[in-house]
Amino acid sequence: MVESFGNRLQERIRELGPLCVGIDPSTALLELWERPDSVEGLEFFALSVLEACSDVAVCIKPQVSFFERFGSEGFRVLERLLKEARSADVLTIADAKRGDIGSSNDGYAQAWLDDRSALCSDAVTLSPYLGLGALSPVITKAQATGRGVFVLAATSNPEGRLLQTARTAQEEKVESMILREVRDLNQGDDELGAVGVVLGATRDRPEFALETLQGPYLVPGVGAQGATADDVGKLFARCPKGTVVVNVGRSILSAGPERSALRDATQRWRDDLSQVLL
Amino acid sequence: MVESFGNRLQERIRELGPLCVGIDPSTALLELWERPDSVEGLEFFALSVLEACSDVAVCIKPQVSFFERFGSEGFRVLERLLKEARSADVLTIADAKRGDIGSSNDGYAQAWLDDRSALCSDAVTLSPYLGLGALSPVITKAQATGRGVFVLAATSNPEGRLLQTARTAQEEKVESMILREVRDLNQGDDELGAVGVVLGATRDRPEFALETLQGPYLVPGVGAQGATADDVGKLFARCPKGTVVVNVGRSILSAGPERSALRDATQRWRDDLSQVLL
Repeated sequence: MVESFGNRLQERIRELGPLCVGIDPSTALLELWERPDSVEGLEFFALSVLEACSDVAVCIKPQVSFFERFGSEGFRVLERLLKEARSADVLTIADAKRGDIGSSNDGYAQAWLDDRSALCSDAVTLSPYLGLGALSPVITKAQATGRGVFVLAATSNPEGRLLQTARTAQEEKVESMILREVRDLNQGDDELGAVGVVLGATRDRPEFALETLQGPYLVPGVGAQGATADDVGKLFARCPKGTVVVNVGRSILSAGPERSALRDATQRWRDDLSQVLL
Repeated sequence: MVESFGNRLQERIRELGPLCVGIDPSTALLELWERPDSVEGLEFFALSVLEACSDVAVCIKPQVSFFERFGSEGFRVLERLLKEARSADVLTIADAKRGDIGSSNDGYAQAWLDDRSALCSDAVTLSPYLGLGALSPVITKAQATGRGVFVLAATSNPEGRLLQTARTAQEEKVESMILREVRDLNQGDDELGAVGVVLGATRDRPEFALETLQGPYLVPGVGAQGATADDVGKLFARCPKGTVVVNVGRSILSAGPERSALRDATQRWRDDLSQVLL
């Protein structure tokens, strides 16, 4: 049997620290870097960040939309980034937020978690508007391959709050339902399972005992979006060490393009987060 | 000012009928067509369906996941399909179900609705788990370019029901909130706006007066998924003519690969749906 993604990630976090670097080659950041808003600029940005954060960040999280905006050529850059990350032994989380009905999700499982795909990543983010049950082709693929998924539960932005805190017919908040259903999916596993959740650091504590998830947390919202390392430390204080990975994007990326400045920023965030989480 | 997507679509539906053909090159359908599950099989499938349904279907809806599973090469096929559809004067709805925080959605707006993108489509489907407000970069781009979006409200699959019928702090069902918010976005427009919704034909009638949306409906769930043309006719009986486009996938696609059988199936569905909707 393959080792679960949760366990793999936990081991790596204990070695390297809990930092994930967001690779967000937006028009605005390429402009800040004084690089063209083109496929060439995209490739320079993505590979520079990877190089600067290798051996410091446990994983990278490319935001797929910023590659997709260049169509098939942008995807070719993403494929190259994922390949170079594998060579550098950096875990990859494709931030794609995919989610459809079951038969269509089979396509997404093939795209993001199948060995034969050039887009194959260690994990992919998923959006549960069509129900967690519909995501099962992707989850099953993750469990079978030692890869992972992160399902959106409570996101870092304010606009999602009304929907994510709506109460189901069982009087449970939507975000709590997702957390509970993910826990149920992980419960067959000895230690940590393949199914993680996205939980924004800018959100109130959910009505759910976070330490019972048996899966990893991916935490956005830190740095430019407003939350601090201390906020994260408090929110996840009861969780086992190595189950929380914190994404930092703009606060690191805006230090570029100079490689040593990028690396310094990465190290500072890694150290700050390690202190509160490990 | 550009003509709104809602008006453009309505005119075309009145001329050609309300049928959208789903282009779903899944592993299963390629097998049924006795074609290889490869980029070549994908391209053959997609272009065959387009050719067979031109001048009969008002639009095609490629399911992006089935292209994405072949990475950048699959996206190149999708780009070719979209280009050929434009030449054939068939409207295109990219069924991508994208949705992220605002800054990332800017990437999706550039990918799917910008003239300069090879993926540029007449409309794209969006998923609102992060809130309709977060989707504004895509919606604004649609309004500015005469293109459209279809936001998921009530989907055709059973797994999404608990989430989509959860009640917000305002005691409104999630699906009704999306419908109401979309109506608000369309209300500045004289006739039909750029913002449509996805409403499954297999679902109960929502707590919302469907005829007040001022935007188009994209309706999955017909045919293999269980709903009939009559079900659709009843659900949308009060809506203005030309505001409902019905997607049919498997029930047409499984007639292939023989071109005339595909075309016959397309015509039959178009006629059945025209009868109940026009």
